[in-house]
Amino acid sequence: MVKIDGYEFAEGGVCAAKGFTASGVIAGIKAGNTTKRDLALIKCSVRCRTSAMFTKNKVKGAPIIVSKEHLKDGFAQAVIVNSGNANTCNDNGIEIAEEMCGLTAEALGIDKNDVLVGSTGVIGQKLSIEPIKAVIPDLVNSLSESGSPLACEAIMTTDTRKKEIAVEFELNGKKCHIGGISKGSGMINPNMATMLAFITTDVDISERLLDKALHAACESTYNMVSVDGDTSTNDSLFIMASGLAENDEITDEGEDYTNFVGALYTVMMNLARETARDGEGATKLIECITYNAPDDETAKTVAKSVVSSNLVKAALFAADANWGRILCAIGYADAEFDISKICVELASAKGRITVFENGAGTAFSEETAKEILSEEEIQIFVDMNSGEGMAIAWGCDLTFDYVKINAEYRT
Amino acid sequence: MVKIDGYEFAEGGVCAAKGFTASGVIAGIKAGNTTKRDLALIKCSVRCRTSAMFTKNKVKGAPIIVSKEHLKDGFAQAVIVNSGNANTCNDNGIEIAEEMCGLTAEALGIDKNDVLVGSTGVIGQKLSIEPIKAVIPDLVNSLSESGSPLACEAIMTTDTRKKEIAVEFELNGKKCHIGGISKGSGMINPNMATMLAFITTDVDISERLLDKALHAACESTYNMVSVDGDTSTNDSLFIMASGLAENDEITDEGEDYTNFVGALYTVMMNLARETARDGEGATKLIECITYNAPDDETAKTVAKSVVSSNLVKAALFAADANWGRILCAIGYADAEFDISKICVELASAKGRITVFENGAGTAFSEETAKEILSEEEIQIFVDMNSGEGMAIAWGCDLTFDYVKINAEYRT
Repeated sequence: MVKIDGYEFAEGGVCAAKGFTASGVIAGIKAGNTTKRDLALIKCSVRCRTSAMFTKNKVKGAPIIVSKEHLKDGFAQAVIVNSGNANTCNDNGIEIAEEMCGLTAEALGIDKNDVLVGSTGVIGQKLSIEPIKAVIPDLVNSLSESGSPLACEAIMTTDTRKKEIAVEFELNGKKCHIGGISKGSGMINPNMATMLAFITTDVDISERLLDKALHAACESTYNMVSVDGDTSTNDSLFIMASGLAENDEITDEGEDYTNFVGALYTVMMNLARETARDGEGATKLIECITYNAPDDETAKTVAKSVVSSNLVKAALFAADANWGRILCAIGYADAEFDISKICVELASAKGRITVFENGAGTAFSEETAKEILSEEEIQIFVDMNSGEGMAIAWGCDLTFDYVKINAEYRT
Repeated sequence: MVKIDGYEFAEGGVCAAKGFTASGVIAGIKAGNTTKRDLALIKCSVRCRTSAMFTKNKVKGAPIIVSKEHLKDGFAQAVIVNSGNANTCNDNGIEIAEEMCGLTAEALGIDKNDVLVGSTGVIGQKLSIEPIKAVIPDLVNSLSESGSPLACEAIMTTDTRKKEIAVEFELNGKKCHIGGISKGSGMINPNMATMLAFITTDVDISERLLDKALHAACESTYNMVSVDGDTSTNDSLFIMASGLAENDEITDEGEDYTNFVGALYTVMMNLARETARDGEGATKLIECITYNAPDDETAKTVAKSVVSSNLVKAALFAADANWGRILCAIGYADAEFDISKICVELASAKGRITVFENGAGTAFSEETAKEILSEEEIQIFVDMNSGEGMAIAWGCDLTFDYVKINAEYRT
């Protein structure tokens, strides 16, 4: 993980970076919706070097197929996104996704190939272009530098919180920005890709390094989040770089690149962490920190195994220090290590206790454990005592509401 | 999968096979338990060729370490099993497990190395030998040919139903039997092993073929069950063969071996299926049948991915035909195949409907779908249209009660 000093959190979300405006309107895509914004637009004043990562699921939403095609030249200028319907597994899906791009391009006066598209919601219900077509003029006219929260609202489905962030930092004396919005909150187990996330920056950076930075940051942020182990068909992560900060273009992996990756990591880590915290039905954020692991890969596998265990998640919902389930999840992680060297601690703002070391449970106060685990942010520290690898994974507890939300979602 | 004709279901569970007796008593192992049997014994009148499979979890219960040691010579004559405490991650675990075998051997007048041991329950709490020691005379004195249901009750934890079965068939004109008992019902995702299951037979079969048959049957029965994706630390599967049926010893993979494997498959398939049905909090059994797959391995991976998806499981709890989630789970299965060829049907005793083919959803009656999915046994048929591989996986729905049971289990 790269860390930098010298950056500050900034206002503006996806509009913090120079050149970007955004908007979000109510299109009424899901039957009966007349109150929630469900169509978002992010636009830049110039064509942007753009990199993207998509789901590894073999079932891919039509918007992914169309966006990939439009990204072949490495540039984009706008993204249109709807919630309420995933436009996936529909026989006219690609046609509709192309039409979304075409109508947006026409209204903006730009090339259709410079428009990307994302969709999220129910799989397998046809998406009608009519409600979208009807509000595109309004969507374009309302684009503004203060539009990020509206776009952020428009991409939400079962999310209960907006996930929006921006940072400011300097490169060669020029103020630079990276901002982003993201949505969860079920079917979350990204694999080399993510849920929907849109990152913008005004940094001038080569196409190759923009892509490299995105993959590097994703690897230790979005790919370390699990809400329910289900990898969505529509996971998409975009980063658009306008270059309007007027820094010297980043063309090698020197200090500027390191600073850029650090800032990008901060943005994506915050969005990923908030996505875990806002997992469907969640009452707690669970962070598993594995360290002194044989290597980073092992650390990642173990950390992700712990935050993905239904039994660990259900125990933490009840603030129950059932560390046997944590050990069990460490033990079935698909990696090679010496289980006898492991030490496990539980922590939160209320304190930190050791629950397991030297191959056996330790004596700890159940009362203290309960107090620690009753907090809304829980850390599970796993000291593997066998090397220098480390990783952090984020998850959430498993609650009655997760079942409720997902038993009732479609109908 | 091997199927045989000519066998019949029989009474007696683990005592159906000649030579075996069983018992189950109340030892009071879990604090406050004065009403549920929690200590079981299965014994044979002769030393048995015995084969076993254990959890692949790196954290292994002490009983597994001790049983492996005692099985080095390939023979056993008795198994003692407790519920209420897993005897795992305790610094004196091996000592206690050895003592359980020692006390049993002494009371039975047999060699300690011929006694196997199993434990199930909470991980990481010390298991006291005292309550066990106190009831061993009673446990031994109450051994009987009608003791299988008592032993079966004694190994249950959150199980709500007994899992007990036996079959009778003939080899060279001799009546032969295979019977078994098994327990679930959470932390169920066996991997080359199983939850606790004890199989007995009176068939005379070589050590090598007994072992081979056990692995073959396990692969398409227990290893195709998932309740919650968590692989337990104590999964153990034992088969003891007394040889008292007086059939000609099975020493090659001819017709007798095929018949034996078929009968064993039937016993283990039934126990595995009942374990899925009785998954923690479950209201429905979910069976995913994949066929015309590129190969059996792909069929297995896809079927298991479908029954393991939290989102599929929650939708079926609500009898919601949310087939998009099934497609999603097929799509992220770790296997190579052509997703566009897939056809998905939903079925139960109430009928069968196609929900997906030619890459898109089909028009179906939501009312009919609801009626089909409101049954207690649901089949998901996945026709992969690309070969001759097939598999069946078993799971259950994800309910409020799963969360309730697991949020409250330990304390």
